Amino acid sequence: MVAPIDITFLGTGSAQPSHTRNHQSMAFRADGEIWLFDAGEATQHQLQKSNLKMGRITKVFITHMHGDHCFGLPPLLCTMTENLNPNRAHEGVVDVYGPRPLRQWLRVALRSTYSRLGRHYRVHELIMEGEVADENQEDRHPDEEPGTNIHVKDNTFDLPIDDKEGWTVRAAPIQHSIPSLGYVIQEPSQPGKLDHATIVPKIQRNAQALLEKGYKSPMAVLGKLQRTQVDITLPDGEVLTPPARRPGRQIVILGDTCDASSMLPLCNSPHLLVHEATNALTQLDRIPTSSSQPEITLKDVEDRARSHGHSTPQMAADLAKRMGAQKLIMTHFSARYKGDDSDEESVAIMEEIRQHALDVLGKERDKDVFCARDLWFYEIKY
Amino acid sequence: MVAPIDITFLGTGSAQPSHTRNHQSMAFRADGEIWLFDAGEATQHQLQKSNLKMGRITKVFITHMHGDHCFGLPPLLCTMTENLNPNRAHEGVVDVYGPRPLRQWLRVALRSTYSRLGRHYRVHELIMEGEVADENQEDRHPDEEPGTNIHVKDNTFDLPIDDKEGWTVRAAPIQHSIPSLGYVIQEPSQPGKLDHATIVPKIQRNAQALLEKGYKSPMAVLGKLQRTQVDITLPDGEVLTPPARRPGRQIVILGDTCDASSMLPLCNSPHLLVHEATNALTQLDRIPTSSSQPEITLKDVEDRARSHGHSTPQMAADLAKRMGAQKLIMTHFSARYKGDDSDEESVAIMEEIRQHALDVLGKERDKDVFCARDLWFYEIKY
Repeated sequence: MVAPIDITFLGTGSAQPSHTRNHQSMAFRADGEIWLFDAGEATQHQLQKSNLKMGRITKVFITHMHGDHCFGLPPLLCTMTENLNPNRAHEGVVDVYGPRPLRQWLRVALRSTYSRLGRHYRVHELIMEGEVADENQEDRHPDEEPGTNIHVKDNTFDLPIDDKEGWTVRAAPIQHSIPSLGYVIQEPSQPGKLDHATIVPKIQRNAQALLEKGYKSPMAVLGKLQRTQVDITLPDGEVLTPPARRPGRQIVILGDTCDASSMLPLCNSPHLLVHEATNALTQLDRIPTSSSQPEITLKDVEDRARSHGHSTPQMAADLAKRMGAQKLIMTHFSARYKGDDSDEESVAIMEEIRQHALDVLGKERDKDVFCARDLWFYEIKY
Repeated sequence: MVAPIDITFLGTGSAQPSHTRNHQSMAFRADGEIWLFDAGEATQHQLQKSNLKMGRITKVFITHMHGDHCFGLPPLLCTMTENLNPNRAHEGVVDVYGPRPLRQWLRVALRSTYSRLGRHYRVHELIMEGEVADENQEDRHPDEEPGTNIHVKDNTFDLPIDDKEGWTVRAAPIQHSIPSLGYVIQEPSQPGKLDHATIVPKIQRNAQALLEKGYKSPMAVLGKLQRTQVDITLPDGEVLTPPARRPGRQIVILGDTCDASSMLPLCNSPHLLVHEATNALTQLDRIPTSSSQPEITLKDVEDRARSHGHSTPQMAADLAKRMGAQKLIMTHFSARYKGDDSDEESVAIMEEIRQHALDVLGKERDKDVFCARDLWFYEIKY
């Protein structure tokens, strides 16, 4: 049985919050453990509205230091750890990953507000090319454990993920107005699929002999073969070879960007790509402000998006295509694009945005492209 | 005509937000200008839900540096100033007042998140007894104007309020687990009430002569008398004396506290006292956790409140009584006390809390005591 993996979009807006879209945050959940990606203001409020348990958050990944992606982190740390027994503070240290000056900022924020946490935390800073790491681990907050400085190598960061066996997280710098990161989560490989049609008759042939050898049921051989990944020789001399393990799910979550091609070497047909699509050319954007104004073109919108380090749905889809992503979820929408499923106009506009991505990916990919909305839950199937 | 003054309670909860109570923030509005008191996380969200205009905020007063009172300030500053013309950034500087290390924390928060503001801001730090002021005004954020350090004198801070004529704000340290402040807002004195019964006949006697002297209407004398505050000699020699000016409204807003007696010398029968009442002994609190547990007494609750630097409704009312406050509004309620007017049980519990204050003030003060709820608007009548 593969573990359930899902992602809850806690906030799907850009710079300013609106009634339907909060600041950025996503909760990635694998086997009950939550990894948070970004924590804009009021992320704890969104968590309260969701059915996720704050206490299950073990790691927080910050994509970049713009306030709409991190202002909610200090209050979240205060709340998510508040009711724990202070004697158990060292248990379940919260790992926080992100670009500089995350560590120093958190220290100042927690110290200035006299905050004490019920769980300890540590910060792993991803040191970009040309940046100088902060090696001062003396000046820690009383609830801070020594963290690490992760240096970029071949344009890639390998993150220390000690406590989740077999899982890896890698990151790469992506293009934005400030240092921004894309993260690649890799599930460990999973047992391969058994070829029941071929194997079962062979076992049936040996059923009696297997029972005599102590197997409670002859079919238990199937489980053993998959679990141990070792050849099994049946009583009649037939050798069963275990199926090759299958690669685990790969999930790519990007910070704000106008070009994340740098992620391509790290990705291998990911199961899911989460990409921003801040600006678009929808019926809302076409409304001319004066009759003398020339019609706004897609190029105008794209130029404007790029100038702020952002993307259009077409740009998001282009990367998804080049990456071979199986699913694309767009997020980080401008406040003008409401995330209100009960409002026909809003639904129509979000569908326009989705169609822009399908223009690039091909209309046959209709079931693979989504626009996120706040508190939307998506299961990443194996 | 006196100016309308009102206060909107943007958040009325304590440490953690709940579905019905956000973190602390109050918007005091006089003549259209908004002064914000505290800005817990998601204050900008609450402002969006209110009918207040963010652009009208000119001053922010922080009562103390606990995160539930200030974590919303950096994102609020980013949003409330975002859409202004950057060429006009120097106009309408936002004044922020509060205890140390407010200035340094804001600098780090705005700088770490690469935030640029559409309006400049400056920080006025209230330097408590024994604290050392930060005189380094070189290291300012690019959108920060030099602020001031306000030193305590006779246990009082006199705040620089340059731009609102005649208004004063004073503050005093109050007792809490960390340095905390109470603020006293003083409206300038207002023209006195004219004794129409005495004056009008005198004017009527001189009506014809006044018209001949150029008055458009004889009754215009009334306005002139009140406005100029100078004696007017009527044509028949009768001298009209202007009425004595009346003191303006006084509003007292306190930070978290278990003892704010230090405010008494600054207050003079204020029109309104806003006091915290974090803990109480209601039907919710009396539920014993085990049969062997002795019944919880008011003293237990008060001891617990004091140990965290907080107050009960009785303690709030006691200060209101000693201060001669005309109205008392309680806020900063524990998350267990829901602020939901459509829920009978919540209403009953908040009424219990209100009655606790009336136990101290006297039941005849029924109309003078309130429990705040989120987005509740209260007009401070003259």
